[in-house]
Amino acid sequence: MNFNETLKNIKTYEAGKPIELVVREFGIKSEDIVKLASNENPYGVSPKVKEAVANKAGDMYLYPDDSMFELKAALAEKFGITSQNLIIGSGSDQVIEFAVHAKANKNNSILINSVTFAMYEIYAKQVGCQIIRTASQEHDLKEFYELYKKHNPAIIFLCTPNNPTGDALDANAVFSFLEKIDNDTLVVVDGAYMEYAAYKDDAKKIDPKTLIEQFDNVLYLGTFSKAYALGGMRVGYGIAQKHIIDALYKLRPPFNVTTLSLVAARSALEDEAFVKESIEKNFIQMRRYEKFAEKKGLSIIPSYTNFVTLVLKNGQNSTDISENLLKKGIIVRNLSSYNLNAIRITVGTKEQNDRLFEELEQLV
Amino acid sequence: MNFNETLKNIKTYEAGKPIELVVREFGIKSEDIVKLASNENPYGVSPKVKEAVANKAGDMYLYPDDSMFELKAALAEKFGITSQNLIIGSGSDQVIEFAVHAKANKNNSILINSVTFAMYEIYAKQVGCQIIRTASQEHDLKEFYELYKKHNPAIIFLCTPNNPTGDALDANAVFSFLEKIDNDTLVVVDGAYMEYAAYKDDAKKIDPKTLIEQFDNVLYLGTFSKAYALGGMRVGYGIAQKHIIDALYKLRPPFNVTTLSLVAARSALEDEAFVKESIEKNFIQMRRYEKFAEKKGLSIIPSYTNFVTLVLKNGQNSTDISENLLKKGIIVRNLSSYNLNAIRITVGTKEQNDRLFEELEQLV
Repeated sequence: MNFNETLKNIKTYEAGKPIELVVREFGIKSEDIVKLASNENPYGVSPKVKEAVANKAGDMYLYPDDSMFELKAALAEKFGITSQNLIIGSGSDQVIEFAVHAKANKNNSILINSVTFAMYEIYAKQVGCQIIRTASQEHDLKEFYELYKKHNPAIIFLCTPNNPTGDALDANAVFSFLEKIDNDTLVVVDGAYMEYAAYKDDAKKIDPKTLIEQFDNVLYLGTFSKAYALGGMRVGYGIAQKHIIDALYKLRPPFNVTTLSLVAARSALEDEAFVKESIEKNFIQMRRYEKFAEKKGLSIIPSYTNFVTLVLKNGQNSTDISENLLKKGIIVRNLSSYNLNAIRITVGTKEQNDRLFEELEQLV
Repeated sequence: MNFNETLKNIKTYEAGKPIELVVREFGIKSEDIVKLASNENPYGVSPKVKEAVANKAGDMYLYPDDSMFELKAALAEKFGITSQNLIIGSGSDQVIEFAVHAKANKNNSILINSVTFAMYEIYAKQVGCQIIRTASQEHDLKEFYELYKKHNPAIIFLCTPNNPTGDALDANAVFSFLEKIDNDTLVVVDGAYMEYAAYKDDAKKIDPKTLIEQFDNVLYLGTFSKAYALGGMRVGYGIAQKHIIDALYKLRPPFNVTTLSLVAARSALEDEAFVKESIEKNFIQMRRYEKFAEKKGLSIIPSYTNFVTLVLKNGQNSTDISENLLKKGIIVRNLSSYNLNAIRITVGTKEQNDRLFEELEQLV
């Protein structure tokens, strides 16, 4: 059977290894596995969120509230915006999908950083648009601007803090950049890790309200998968002026967020203390990674997130090291597919990091 | 800002009213609302499923197992197929999305029944393909064949039992139809309500295994939203030969089913007794609707599902009747948007149906 031409360019996505797979492949007990590969919040789910979900489990037979009234109201209050400025997706991934399908096509292009979140490219391939990449590994807004002038892309993606490197742009720089972009180019500011950056350095904090008040061509993305500790429940959001939200809404499938996901996300917003505590612990533990790198003479990209990217030395191989860790039940992210001889490690709990250092000590 | 041309043809989908909305709009207490609009299983969630989900709630911070190993294994066993013949979606809706995006485009068409599930058209508009409809309200396979010969569609959708009418095709007729279709046309057999049809009349039962063994161009769809009582959790599946599954997989976003949805669906498969009992009760209660229609001289489309379509008489207006019911806290589906002067009512529990008849008695 023949399928659409665009499919020929698409490879099937392979996610990071889940704990279940390591259990099956290596016969390691589930409780002995340390998963530091997907930048989840290692402190687990807030007890209040667990309770709210268990209380709502009897409603699983009912379709979700497709208007997402309560979650939108809570997010609108948090950010000082209105529900009309919000679209909620099955992860912020899905909002990226809506944006790409709404704006990009085989006659135009998107502009992304050389090393950045993989989903921009994956969705772009679905619509068959051209993908322009910077040469610089860090977001170089001067280069972004030059490429924008040259290619007039339909969408520019700024991922700040950036995944999988962890560095972040100054908010001022982003605002100045946006001043120079024509309002028919959509600029997506992906703030999946923004809660971490905002805690570490106020200069990195981008306020979605100010952003969308000043620019009619910007879409800010946030997620419940990281600091809010709900990676398994698939809830993310886009914030923009109403005309952009209305366009994206046309592509939103009904009931794209589950009944329990809506409850979980809403109750997570009611337990900000849990989030704050997770973030504080994250940066205390991150110091240990910085010291480890220093001791070993490795370079570590300054990180505004809950992960660190450890750049290996010549003679060390990220694939070998990742595989050796995996055999010990420790899952990290090998960045060889990004053409980096580096591993990305989620900053875990004290105990998880103890285990990681114990093993990594012998490998680098 | 300009968006892609295809968006101009798309209206934003409006889902049936959730209980929450009726509470807000009419000030009716949540416990007084009878929702018979979305064909959920009115007997609620199996206690075993609720327990499994509550036990797993602590894992919400972890991304889902993207290989969906366990749910796939359970489904493969149920149907006597392999995991390679399966793709799992956020509802079977999402598998429809994959199929349309994989096969349809602005240079071809899809062929659907005049009155059928709305999502076929919604996804078709996203890719800008032509939409061919039969004239017949019931699936008339002779007319389907004539339109197929005339238009050579990329996809043919057979919805059996059909939503929102409730009638179903004989399995034999579907198999004979498939014999005549070229293997570059994808035929989607949407069996969202198949568990109900199979119980009521063996002749309507389509076995996915036999289907995909005989035909390399067919995609069977099933869901956990109806008989399996998990409408809120968004889990559906497609069954086909591997070459079709592989193509659809290219369009599947990672983590498209939540951690708790995977657990809920898998545990629902372990409580088939609950499903069987729900279906038995459904058809006992459906007799009451048939008697009511007879008494009132209304026609009811013979239904192989968990809903009935009550066709109103001249002088009766489906919009007025639906709105009058809504004011009493009873939510049904007005079919005026399908150009039918009819209302679709989910067959509820005994108590829900008592309430419905009490009010409807005075309106028709």
